[in-house]
Amino acid sequence: MDSNRIQYEPYKNRIITANEAAALFTDGAVVGSSGFTKAGDSKAVLPAFAKRAVVEDIGITLITGASLGHTTDSDLAEANALYRRMPFQVDNVLRQKINNGDVMFIDQHLSETAELLTNKHLPKMDYAVIEALEIDQNGNIIPTTSIGNSAAFAQLSEKVIIEINTSLPLSFKGIHDVFIPKNYPERDVINITTPNSRIGKGYIKVDPDKVVGIVFTELPDSPAQVAEPDDNTIGIAEHLMAFFKSEVQSGRLSPSLMPLQAGIGKIANAVMMGFLNSPFKNLTMYSEVLQDSTFHLIDAGIMDFASASSITVSQECHDNLIKNFDKYQDKIVLRPQNISNSPEVIRRLGVIAINTAIEFDIYGNVNSTHLSGTKMMNGIGGSGDFARNAYLSVFVTPSISKGGAISHVVPMVPHTDHTEHDVDILVTDQGLADLRGLAPRERAKVVIENCVHPDYKEALQDYFERACQLGGHTPHILGEAFAWHAGLAERGSMKPFCPA
Amino acid sequence: MDSNRIQYEPYKNRIITANEAAALFTDGAVVGSSGFTKAGDSKAVLPAFAKRAVVEDIGITLITGASLGHTTDSDLAEANALYRRMPFQVDNVLRQKINNGDVMFIDQHLSETAELLTNKHLPKMDYAVIEALEIDQNGNIIPTTSIGNSAAFAQLSEKVIIEINTSLPLSFKGIHDVFIPKNYPERDVINITTPNSRIGKGYIKVDPDKVVGIVFTELPDSPAQVAEPDDNTIGIAEHLMAFFKSEVQSGRLSPSLMPLQAGIGKIANAVMMGFLNSPFKNLTMYSEVLQDSTFHLIDAGIMDFASASSITVSQECHDNLIKNFDKYQDKIVLRPQNISNSPEVIRRLGVIAINTAIEFDIYGNVNSTHLSGTKMMNGIGGSGDFARNAYLSVFVTPSISKGGAISHVVPMVPHTDHTEHDVDILVTDQGLADLRGLAPRERAKVVIENCVHPDYKEALQDYFERACQLGGHTPHILGEAFAWHAGLAERGSMKPFCPA
Repeated sequence: MDSNRIQYEPYKNRIITANEAAALFTDGAVVGSSGFTKAGDSKAVLPAFAKRAVVEDIGITLITGASLGHTTDSDLAEANALYRRMPFQVDNVLRQKINNGDVMFIDQHLSETAELLTNKHLPKMDYAVIEALEIDQNGNIIPTTSIGNSAAFAQLSEKVIIEINTSLPLSFKGIHDVFIPKNYPERDVINITTPNSRIGKGYIKVDPDKVVGIVFTELPDSPAQVAEPDDNTIGIAEHLMAFFKSEVQSGRLSPSLMPLQAGIGKIANAVMMGFLNSPFKNLTMYSEVLQDSTFHLIDAGIMDFASASSITVSQECHDNLIKNFDKYQDKIVLRPQNISNSPEVIRRLGVIAINTAIEFDIYGNVNSTHLSGTKMMNGIGGSGDFARNAYLSVFVTPSISKGGAISHVVPMVPHTDHTEHDVDILVTDQGLADLRGLAPRERAKVVIENCVHPDYKEALQDYFERACQLGGHTPHILGEAFAWHAGLAERGSMKPFCPA
Repeated sequence: MDSNRIQYEPYKNRIITANEAAALFTDGAVVGSSGFTKAGDSKAVLPAFAKRAVVEDIGITLITGASLGHTTDSDLAEANALYRRMPFQVDNVLRQKINNGDVMFIDQHLSETAELLTNKHLPKMDYAVIEALEIDQNGNIIPTTSIGNSAAFAQLSEKVIIEINTSLPLSFKGIHDVFIPKNYPERDVINITTPNSRIGKGYIKVDPDKVVGIVFTELPDSPAQVAEPDDNTIGIAEHLMAFFKSEVQSGRLSPSLMPLQAGIGKIANAVMMGFLNSPFKNLTMYSEVLQDSTFHLIDAGIMDFASASSITVSQECHDNLIKNFDKYQDKIVLRPQNISNSPEVIRRLGVIAINTAIEFDIYGNVNSTHLSGTKMMNGIGGSGDFARNAYLSVFVTPSISKGGAISHVVPMVPHTDHTEHDVDILVTDQGLADLRGLAPRERAKVVIENCVHPDYKEALQDYFERACQLGGHTPHILGEAFAWHAGLAERGSMKPFCPA
C-alpha cells in the first residue's frame, strides 16, 4: 500500500480491502467498472465479488468500457454473478453463458453506453469501480491505461470505489484528456479538430462524498497476445497498402493519408504493421485502442500522433512504454470512449476505419458479431461508430478458415452489423473490392472477382447468377441464402456436397 | 420570363431554352439536380433531356437530393436515359428498371452523397441543374422549396445550369441557411446547437464562370398527397403519444420533448398530427422534410420552430404558406441535406427520430428498403442518418397489410437497413415495444407481446421458442427464418398453411 498515491486527505481513512468493497454490492446492483480491452480494469473488487457470489448466490448488472482482462469475466460468469452484462466482452466462459441465455448481454456501440446512461435509457448505476494511478488533492482520479466509460460512471453512479493500482509508476501521467459533454438540452460541441486536440482535463472528476472505499492493488493489466503475421494477414496488409498507394497516386489522399482507426486483434495489428514498410509518413491515429503496432510506427518515425481510449499491448511493449514514457508522452492521448468513438469527431476528422469482419456477403453487408447468425462472438465494439462515420470504411477478413471448411465471403450474412450503406472497401488475402459508387449487382461482381477463395468462387458466382434471374435490386434466393451456413452446421463445411 | 429575377447582369445573355440546356449533356455525363422529396426539383431541363434521350438513345448518371416530382423520373426511366441514379427515388417506373437491373441505383444515406462527391469517392460531376427563386447581384442562387445537395453540386460540378422558377413569389426568402463544411483536412465544426441556429448564408454560392445557361420555368412543385389518418396510423400515433407522456412523467423528457424528426409519408405525417391533441408544447423539429403536419402544429401554437432540407406539402398547405409567408418565415429554416441530416448535429441536439419501416424482426432489426429482401422500394433516405445518432430511434409500421396476407413483424428481416443496435422503440397499431437496455431474447418477448398482429402471434412465439431451444445470443432457425416470405411468394400470404 502506498498512501502517497492519495493526495486528498479525507480519503485516507476510507481505505478498505477488496473483500470489504465487494461486500457492498447488493444482489441485483448495477455496477460500472473501468476497463477497456483489458486495460485499466478492476483487478481487485470484481474478482473479490466473483468469490463472494459463489458463496452467496447473488449477482449484478456489470457495465464496463469494453472487455476485461485476467479471468475476471470468466470468474464472474462461472459464479453466476452476472445477470446482465454490457457493452462488450471477449471471454470464453461468459460467451457460453450468453449463448445459453443465462446472461443477458446487451451488445452496444461503444460510443453509446455513456449516452444511454446519461439519458436514463439504462437503469441508475449503483456503484462505479474505477482504477486509478493516483488521487489528486481534490479527490479526483488520475486514470491508468484506459479511460473507457470511467468518467461517465464516476459522474452517474450513486457510489464510487477507487482501485489504486501501484503497478504503474506515478510518471504515467499527462496522456489523459477527459471531456464530458453537458447533458441535454445544453449539449455542447466536441471541439476536437485534429487527433492531438486537447479539450478536457487530465483527471476524472469525482464527488468525494460518493467515494465509499479505496482499494489498493498491484496487479498489472493482462498483456496482449500479439500474433506473428501469417500469410493471410500479410496478404490483407499488402492489398490494403497497394490500395492506399493508388489513392495517393490518384490525388485523393496525401502520403499522410487520414487519421487511422484499427480494430483490435491480430488482423488489424498486422495490417497496421504493414505501414512499416510503406511510403506513407506523418500518419496519425484516431482510434479506440493503441496496440503494439502503434508504438512500432511511432518508433519508426512513421506515425506522429495517436489518440484512443486505451493502451492494450504486449508485455514487451508495455515495459518499453513505461521505461521510455517521456518519449511517447506527447505523441499519445487517451480519451473517454464516447469521445474516441464520437460520430461527430470521426466524421469531422475523416477517419479511415479498418475493422475485422466475421464474414461479409456479396453485396457488402458485414457480420461482426454472430457465428452462424445466432452465437455471439464478442460484440460490435466500436466498429459501427467508426464504419458509419468514416471517410473510408474498410473491413478485412481471411477468405477461408478451418482448412477451407468456412468461407468468410457468403451469399447472405445471417446477421448484419454493418449494412451495405456503410461499407466502402472489403479485403481478404485474395484481394480487395472497392465498392464505392457501385450498385448491389456491381458490388457482387467485384466481391466475387476479388475477395472470395477459389474453392468457393464458382458456387458463389452460380448463386449470384441464379439470383439475378429472379430479379430485384439486390438479387437473392431466399431459400438458399443460408445454405452454406446450414452445410457448416450439418456437415462441418460450407462447401456444397456436389460442386455446382 | 421575368428577367428581374436575374440581378447579375452577365447572366442575362445566357438565357436559353430547356431544350438547349438538355442538349449540352453528353452521353454518360454525370448530372446533379436540385430536388428533395419532390420539392425544388428541375422541372424544365431534366424533362427536356428525357425527350431528347428517346430520340438519341443516350443517358446520364443522375444524382439528386432525394426524390423528384412530377413524372420526371418516370420519363427518364422510360426513355432509358438513366444509366445510374442516386441517392433516392420513389418512382414506380424507375423502380421497375432498378429491380430489373436496367438502372444501377446506389442507395445512400442522404447525408452522405455530398460527402462522397466532395471526397471524390464518386466520379466528377459534369453538370448541375439547380432551381432558383432568383439570382442575386453576385450571380448566386436563392433556392426555392428545398436545398438538398444543391450547394454541393454547385460547388463541385464543372458547369451549372440554373432553372429560375417563377411560380414562387420573390417574397419566399429568408428561410435558407446554406453552410458548406470545408474540405479535409480543414473540416470545421458544424456549429448548430439548437434547431434554429443559423450558421450559413441565404444563398447558394456559384462561380459565375461555370454558369452555362439560365432556363425559366413556371411549373410549381408537385403537391404532396396527404392521406387521411386511418385506424392503423391513429393507433400508432396513440401508442407513441402514450409513450411520450410516460417519458415525461418519469422525468426523462420535458413537455417540449426533444427536437423531432419524422420520415416522409402518410404514417409519419399521421403520427405528427397526433401531437395536435396532446399535452406537449414548444415542440421543435430537426428533420429533413417539413410536411403539412409541421404547419398545422405551428398554426396550433404547439410547435415553435422547424428545421429541414425541404418543404413538401399539399396544394392547400402550399397556398397557405405562400399567402401567410411572414407568419412562418421566422419559424422555419431549410439547410443542405448534409447539415439537416448531419450525424454530428443530430447527436448534439438529441433528436427523437420517427421513421417508417417496411418490416422489422423479433430482435428489432429493421428493413426500410427491400420487399422480400430483393426488390427496392424507395431507398434508405435519411432514416439511417437519424436512427443511428438519435436520442431515441423509433420505427413505426402497421402490424399487417394486404388484408392480413403480410405481417410487418417477421422472424428475420431478409434485408437489414437498421441493426438491433440502432433501434430503441418499435410501434405498430397493436402496441409499442420499448427495447432500451434489453438483450435480444428480451427484445423478442416485448416485440411479440406488443407489436405483432394476433393472426401471427402464435406462429411467431412458436418460432422464437423453437429457436431458443437451438441456443445462441440471438436465436434463429436459419432454415425457417424466411419461411414467411417464401409463403408470400408462393401462396400470396405469409400465413402458414396449417396454423401452428
